[in-house]
Amino acid sequence: MKYNLSNKMSTVKFSAIRTMNNRLKGDDAISFAGGFPDPEAIPQETLKEFSKIVFDENTLEILKYGNAPGYTNLIESSKDFMNSIDEGTVKDSDDVLITTGSMQGLDIVSKLFINEGETMIVEDPSFLGAFNSFKCNGAVLHGVPLEDDGVNIDALEAAFSIKPTPKLFYIIPNFQNPSGVTTSLEKRKKIYELAKKYGVVILEDNPYGYLRTSGESLPSIKSMDTEGIVVYVASLSKIISPGMRIGLLVCDKEIYDKMKIVKSVNDNHTNLLSQYIMDRFLRTVDMDKHIHSLRDIYAKKCHFMLEMMETHFHPSITYVKPEGGMFIWAKLPDHVSMPEFVEAAIQRNVAIVPGNEFMVDTTAPCQYVRINFSTPSLEQIERGIKILGEVSYEYCGELVKS
Amino acid sequence: MKYNLSNKMSTVKFSAIRTMNNRLKGDDAISFAGGFPDPEAIPQETLKEFSKIVFDENTLEILKYGNAPGYTNLIESSKDFMNSIDEGTVKDSDDVLITTGSMQGLDIVSKLFINEGETMIVEDPSFLGAFNSFKCNGAVLHGVPLEDDGVNIDALEAAFSIKPTPKLFYIIPNFQNPSGVTTSLEKRKKIYELAKKYGVVILEDNPYGYLRTSGESLPSIKSMDTEGIVVYVASLSKIISPGMRIGLLVCDKEIYDKMKIVKSVNDNHTNLLSQYIMDRFLRTVDMDKHIHSLRDIYAKKCHFMLEMMETHFHPSITYVKPEGGMFIWAKLPDHVSMPEFVEAAIQRNVAIVPGNEFMVDTTAPCQYVRINFSTPSLEQIERGIKILGEVSYEYCGELVKS
Repeated sequence: MKYNLSNKMSTVKFSAIRTMNNRLKGDDAISFAGGFPDPEAIPQETLKEFSKIVFDENTLEILKYGNAPGYTNLIESSKDFMNSIDEGTVKDSDDVLITTGSMQGLDIVSKLFINEGETMIVEDPSFLGAFNSFKCNGAVLHGVPLEDDGVNIDALEAAFSIKPTPKLFYIIPNFQNPSGVTTSLEKRKKIYELAKKYGVVILEDNPYGYLRTSGESLPSIKSMDTEGIVVYVASLSKIISPGMRIGLLVCDKEIYDKMKIVKSVNDNHTNLLSQYIMDRFLRTVDMDKHIHSLRDIYAKKCHFMLEMMETHFHPSITYVKPEGGMFIWAKLPDHVSMPEFVEAAIQRNVAIVPGNEFMVDTTAPCQYVRINFSTPSLEQIERGIKILGEVSYEYCGELVKS
Repeated sequence: MKYNLSNKMSTVKFSAIRTMNNRLKGDDAISFAGGFPDPEAIPQETLKEFSKIVFDENTLEILKYGNAPGYTNLIESSKDFMNSIDEGTVKDSDDVLITTGSMQGLDIVSKLFINEGETMIVEDPSFLGAFNSFKCNGAVLHGVPLEDDGVNIDALEAAFSIKPTPKLFYIIPNFQNPSGVTTSLEKRKKIYELAKKYGVVILEDNPYGYLRTSGESLPSIKSMDTEGIVVYVASLSKIISPGMRIGLLVCDKEIYDKMKIVKSVNDNHTNLLSQYIMDRFLRTVDMDKHIHSLRDIYAKKCHFMLEMMETHFHPSITYVKPEGGMFIWAKLPDHVSMPEFVEAAIQRNVAIVPGNEFMVDTTAPCQYVRINFSTPSLEQIERGIKILGEVSYEYCGELVKS
């Protein structure tokens, strides 16, 4: 049968990450394409033990239907956790919704606000999964260029001035995906003021914020909010376990009932066993110590990759050193074909992601590639970066040689 | 802040079921409002044991990111299970997507097909959660009246003839929620032929199909499909555990890639621990015996409730005896105010759901109420139906008395 799909589906596409990874072959393949936690960073034994305890103690409660907003104890423990890291993220005027991963939070918020064909403002580049989520709810994306310290403020104000006024601005302020950029404190304040001035709701996504590997922590935009204009989305995927699918959505109580309805319409409620496990984790594990151990793992990998890149990459390739997160966003010199570079890497069994995949306009010329350091082992980082280094000298060296 | 929400949100409303249940007070309250499995029907010890085994055997696999379509082994075991109950449901030309409960399946399908403002055909009355799901994706619902053996076929053809042709028809053919109606074999064939003729995709939802308490099983519409025009949604919530949130979506391979994209955009993938537990359940438990034990539980409750209704209800209240599922759909005589009847019941601490909540037009006059028999105990059924019986004599008896 010829299926007559919705118009919005034509703008949504498969993740280039899986496509790249599917092209890898054999045991010596190296993927810098994903964005997965280091297996060492997942507290496997603790989670297994907690699973047994909570299931024994709450068998029927875990197996029955639950409530749309989430398991009450987890709502409370996640509030305390978020505020312990970043004071004021969850205020007395806010509430927390437990989502099936933070991807679902993005779906809920865009579904709640966007009419088909309406403009939504995004950082450009940004997380392609988020772009797909917004497009699936009918949004037309308007990108604001990203600089080393966050979005260009003039371009943001111009975007907010579009008529009718856009309803939502999506931002990942910490170690952004894919760019690694951290929005400066000054820009966070300016962004908040502009959103207030124009009446735009900020959708602040913070999947990596807890994984700072250097520099000083900055307050979330949510923590500055006195008007209820910031909806904040976080995740336990990167700091505890992605397979458990637990995300957190924080919003003003005034809009919380509507969020709950969309949540219940999406999937009724989030898996209960996972919610109980995560609640026990947040309550009984020393989270400060846990987070620091994760930071050590990722700092080591990040610094080692940067060191390897400095040693092996052609000097014409540039990048901002990220202060956390999982990615390095590297720029090839202008005379190099980025797609050919990526292709040459995959031919040598090393996967990186072409930067245009993260742009609002994926067809525009792009010199960037995204390189992940969280998933590969140190041995793979060394071997893979050496291979990319060889490719870089073949491709980027030409002008120097000629 | 004054939030400027999407237009579609204004048509979506909170579940009346929770509203009714929230009004119950104290230990003697009786809810006939929900649609939850009997706690006795949830294999608690088995699931707890399986959780330990699968977590021990697959720790890292369960805690890492998974794949959007689902855990491969569960995809296979669920195919075998569905075909063992209803041959031909999953054909060689089909594939299965694991969803976060079957609610998510409804969201995925409507998101994939519907443009904002497009008409979607539904049985009237039907599952209000489904209505909310479709509306959240921009659908405008067009109801086709339900008769004792399924939708009115002439009205269905008239609905399919609307221009532009509607893309989707949503149907629950077995023990429909709320009506308890089972679509006859003859009507299933006619519905399929009409859908083929007009090019309408059938979204067949079968949450209760395995819970037949009397009569002969009928083949799913999916099993008759030779064209790939039926998308089939089922759930393990009602036969194993709702808290595990495992739904199944079956569709033609031609459309499967698109389903996968929407799934990955919704929540990346379904909770892995639950998927592993469910796979082990389907593979190692004698499903035939398990399903029969559930049928015994629900048959006993259903027949007891019908017996009680026959004894205690005023004879002017009519209903079709369901052959399975979880609900009895009772019609009050025309001179009775249904909302007043429901209110009188809740005043006596017995919750039932006003029938208009399940109609496309919730404001139209409606004489029906939905009464659930799966959740309450036999003692509660006896006590609750006696109370409703008293209410019925107060309200329905007037014309007889006068």
